[in-house]
Amino acid sequence: MPVLSLEAAQSLVAEALVRCRTSEANAASVARALVAAEADGLKGHGLSRVPSYAAQAKVGKVDGFAAPAVTRPAPSVVAVDAAHGFAYPALDAALAALPEVARAQGIAVAPIRRSHHCGAAGHAVERLAEAGLIGMLFANTPAAIAPWGGSRAVFGTNPIAFACPVEGAAPIVVDLSISKVARGNILAAKQKGEPIPEGWALDEEGRPTTDPAAALKGTMLPLGDAKGTALALMVELLAAGLTGATYAAEASSFLDAEGPPPGTGQLILALDPVELGGPGTVGRFAALAEAITAQDGARLPGARRLALRRKAATEGLTLAEGLLAEIKGL
Amino acid sequence: MPVLSLEAAQSLVAEALVRCRTSEANAASVARALVAAEADGLKGHGLSRVPSYAAQAKVGKVDGFAAPAVTRPAPSVVAVDAAHGFAYPALDAALAALPEVARAQGIAVAPIRRSHHCGAAGHAVERLAEAGLIGMLFANTPAAIAPWGGSRAVFGTNPIAFACPVEGAAPIVVDLSISKVARGNILAAKQKGEPIPEGWALDEEGRPTTDPAAALKGTMLPLGDAKGTALALMVELLAAGLTGATYAAEASSFLDAEGPPPGTGQLILALDPVELGGPGTVGRFAALAEAITAQDGARLPGARRLALRRKAATEGLTLAEGLLAEIKGL
Repeated sequence: MPVLSLEAAQSLVAEALVRCRTSEANAASVARALVAAEADGLKGHGLSRVPSYAAQAKVGKVDGFAAPAVTRPAPSVVAVDAAHGFAYPALDAALAALPEVARAQGIAVAPIRRSHHCGAAGHAVERLAEAGLIGMLFANTPAAIAPWGGSRAVFGTNPIAFACPVEGAAPIVVDLSISKVARGNILAAKQKGEPIPEGWALDEEGRPTTDPAAALKGTMLPLGDAKGTALALMVELLAAGLTGATYAAEASSFLDAEGPPPGTGQLILALDPVELGGPGTVGRFAALAEAITAQDGARLPGARRLALRRKAATEGLTLAEGLLAEIKGL
Repeated sequence: MPVLSLEAAQSLVAEALVRCRTSEANAASVARALVAAEADGLKGHGLSRVPSYAAQAKVGKVDGFAAPAVTRPAPSVVAVDAAHGFAYPALDAALAALPEVARAQGIAVAPIRRSHHCGAAGHAVERLAEAGLIGMLFANTPAAIAPWGGSRAVFGTNPIAFACPVEGAAPIVVDLSISKVARGNILAAKQKGEPIPEGWALDEEGRPTTDPAAALKGTMLPLGDAKGTALALMVELLAAGLTGATYAAEASSFLDAEGPPPGTGQLILALDPVELGGPGTVGRFAALAEAITAQDGARLPGARRLALRRKAATEGLTLAEGLLAEIKGL
């Protein structure tokens, strides 16, 4: 299979998007994000997205020329209208403004509306941690999870991401979606003609199912049953209700060029550890990290991603022939 | 079994604490919180706590005369030193200051350190929702959960609470602890001589166990396996790392009078929906709530608690004879 350097992969993606009604600046932002996800082994948020992103830009379901608009409705608020463009330029705009506001105010918040698929949510908050801040991100996605006891999806898989700086080491990054497994696992079982384990999904009547076809017509189950559904509700209210974005139930797919723009939302928090906890706070984060890594067999979340990232930086990205040809042919 | 009005129960608790080295103001704050938890059916955070709270106040493990100190290190920060007193007066101080700051800044944050058991975490954020704000609370608790792959507990059961106002209805309140089940379930199984289900706990070597005695020497499992452990880490870093509170691994028990003060922490966020999402935002929250309650069988989290609360307000609280005698005898 072909191997590309990270730089070559970014150019490949950016050039493909520019050919599909996207500005050079926006294409560069999207390419950076997708290549970073691919390098971390997060293939579902990586280069596999290029064909569907390009198709959406071509028909205007995502506006490749949109410029995110930043306003400051209150001293600690950096509000971003992603203007139905890609999410990454809007995230870039929020992340550029948040550190200064968080350091001045102690905490800052960025509601982002009229947005799109935010990809590897951990990457956004990791950039805040690299700036010495704690970052949190909540995002909503198209409908996938039903309310507890119900059968119609009103929440997305709604990721939560968190990062904090660690003295003398890489930031701690938490990045999880609320669904028990990614939908791709159900698609894969269907393609293989295999059943899925109980606990992954419900059918369209809200009954547990092990039939992948019935699951794809139904809803995904969250991590932790009723508690997970409560977390999905919390994220939906923060990322869409509070920001003025489109709720999961009305949001069009991130994966095809059908329908209106998804218009989903993200909410980012940035907290200054020095203002909140005093000058020794980042050292305290390191102490907890050490108490974890000192245990046999224990690991920090994200350890595998960092190892893959180092490997990709030296060895490049291995892409499937078919995907490479598809991107080149756009 | 004896039945008490809410007012009578509050007086009973407050008077018992005043007899056990606690100021009248602090005793009233603790009594309000415990009676509110009892009324919501949250007995683990209710009047069952009075004997152990009183024992801790008597020996000074909790300082019943502590006055929480509020400082403003940055424009959006309300920092609270609970001074090793009960958590409730410190929460009261934070909740009194947060609304004005959140409305002026868009968002406000209260780190609380040198604190104690925060009880029903949902009640604190519900008060912010009643003031028209979104509230979030993260708290750490004494060690219960091991890092993923490890065997020694470094996280507490670490609750997450969230509340938001709903136009024309009671606030939506999410309140969950990160452990799969409460430790009380394991104690109950041990008393009955019954095994516990797999997936509740690990033994002291980090192996899955169905033996309640081995589980009590070991660690609790989180909701959602590795994802839940990642959430426990996030809460530990926010509620203890960031606030300057004691980490779970070093925190003494909330349940007995042994050792130094627990010194755990809480972090509260307050967000103004009007500043972040515009004037229609609280109506948008109502729209999502309706999309949930309109589904057959579906319910909002907290529905059961609200029903019990209404019942308690009219019918009073039913207490066990033994507990009532124990509180009266303090």
